[in-house]
This record gives sequence, C-alpha cells and structure tokens, in this order.
Amino acid sequence: MQDLKKFIRDVPDFPKPGIVFKDITPLLHNAEAFARVIKVFADRYSAEKIDKIAGIESRGFIFGGALSVQMGVGFVPIRKHGKLPWTKVSEEYVLEYGKDRIEMHVDAVSAGERVLVVDDLLATGGTCGAVCQLIEKRKALVASLAFVVELDFLNGREKLKGRDIFSIMHF
Amino acid sequence: MQDLKKFIRDVPDFPKPGIVFKDITPLLHNAEAFARVIKVFADRYSAEKIDKIAGIESRGFIFGGALSVQMGVGFVPIRKHGKLPWTKVSEEYVLEYGKDRIEMHVDAVSAGERVLVVDDLLATGGTCGAVCQLIEKRKALVASLAFVVELDFLNGREKLKGRDIFSIMHF
Repeated sequence: MQDLKKFIRDVPDFPKPGIVFKDITPLLHNAEAFARVIKVFADRYSAEKIDKIAGIESRGFIFGGALSVQMGVGFVPIRKHGKLPWTKVSEEYVLEYGKDRIEMHVDAVSAGERVLVVDDLLATGGTCGAVCQLIEKRKALVASLAFVVELDFLNGREKLKGRDIFSIMHF
Repeated sequence: MQDLKKFIRDVPDFPKPGIVFKDITPLLHNAEAFARVIKVFADRYSAEKIDKIAGIESRGFIFGGALSVQMGVGFVPIRKHGKLPWTKVSEEYVLEYGKDRIEMHVDAVSAGERVLVVDDLLATGGTCGAVCQLIEKRKALVASLAFVVELDFLNGREKLKGRDIFSIMHF
C-alpha cells in the first residue's frame, strides 16, 4: 500500500505544537484512492461474517459509511457525548488531559452480532478500546478493528491486545 | 419513498424541549434501507457531470462518503471550525442563538469543478447556504444539493432559492 501513502499529508503542529498530524483529506479528494481503500477493506473482510459496521465520529463515518454500502451491511454511528438523540449506552475513556465519553444507541447492535469497527486512524487506541466496550455491553462481538492509518510508535495495538486489527498503512 | 419513512424515528424534545428530532440511525442500521438511499441518490445524479461530493459534518459524512465511492468521485469533508488541519476557507453562518463557522480545505475543489453537496437533513438551510458560499469562494460550482430528509415547514428551500435541491423524504 506504499502508493497510497502519497495521499496522506503531514501537517506539523496540529492540533498543537510538536504534533505532526496525518491528514487523510487528500486521499478522500482522490476518487481512485478513496475507492481503493474501501476495496482493500471489503476484500479483507469478504470471507468473514460481518453483521454491522461501526464507524467512529467523525472521520470514521466517511470510511465506515462507504464500506457498509459496499459490503451490504448496516451502519452504526458511534458518537461523542450528547449527539445521539435516543436511548444510549455510553463509555468513558481517558485522554491525555481529562476524560471523554462516547455513545451508541441501544438498538444499534443485537446480541451475538459480529461488528467490524472502522476508523481513519489508530493512535493510542483509547477511543477504540471504549468502542469495543460499548459493543460488548450490548452482547455483540467485535469481529475486527480496521484502520486506514496506524501510528505504530503510539503502541495502540498494546492497548487493544487480543483483538484482530487490520491497518492499510503504517507510519 | 413512503416505505423508507418507517426507518426515520421521531425523538421528542431533542436537542431541546418542544423539538421533535428526526433520527436517521434506524435507516443506517438497516443494510437494505441505507443502500437504497445511496442508490436513489446515485440514480438521480448518474446523468449529470459531478466532479466532487461534499459532505457536511457529521451525518453528511456517512451518506456523502458512501455516495462518493458508489459514484466514483472524490469526497470533500466540510467541517466545523478548528477541525481541519491544513489551509482553509471558512464561512460564518447564523444559528437560532449566535453564530457558527464551517471550513473546507483550499485544495478540496478546483475552479470549474461541479460539486454535489450531501447532508442528512434540510432544515432552515443556514448551514447549507454557507457550504455553497465556501465552494463558490474556490470558484467551483454547486451542481445540486441532496438530502435524505427535508423538513418542509422550515422553508429551507426559500433560503436556498435558485439552487437545485433533491430530497428523498419530506416531512
């Protein structure tokens, strides 16, 4: 997937000084590159039983929504606190400074369903770990975690140990 | 599209007392309903020249991302203030109380490109009007505005007068 890397733009000092942000918008702007990412995901999971795809707000919505239609499965939006309107389960997770909370509608997954979690980026794995908890609280199963980009040096895999993880690009 | 309406859930008093929120998550959860919405959009625009699809954060990302891959065109995320990392154009718009600001990367569209704007809901049309301004600031053209749901009683079409508007469901 080396050739897809040219569509990932380094933005220094975002969101704060010293951090180099991996900007995936050039990949989205390019029809072939975006479609290729979705095809790589679809091919990777075509032989598995996947009942739902869960996308993490906001960039996970772009890839997760596209993959859901491509694979013909339902889509579950996992949102930040206070955004979902109906009855929810929620899960707190720790940030570098402070805490945050993500939520999912209680009817988003059924007991025993196999859920593929999709996001643009695996960094420390904190958010994704909380998403797995949400899904398991509803007695569904996390089939796999799929990322467009993984930042290997942040050791997100360590935090998500024991889970199946697939990333298209590694930095 | 009457049969798609059963996948839209009314949630009273969200986000505040007296407002009945149209919840599109049951539609997303259902693979056939979600795929059908994307097919209706794709069929509607198949005969038009569309160079880019712009999706409005956050629910517009789900539909816009899926439609981009289905139609084979690039995707442009339109985001709330401070979320995009690189060089941006921004546009302010008026809310019921106060103001907000949306942003787009300057390289998201090229001069003369025809852009289809996608969002889940047309309400007052304030946000969507600002999105059109953003696209036109970069000398691209707004080909059409596509919504899953339109709240007719809020007269968003009036604010967007002169623009091509397509909504799958009307309430």
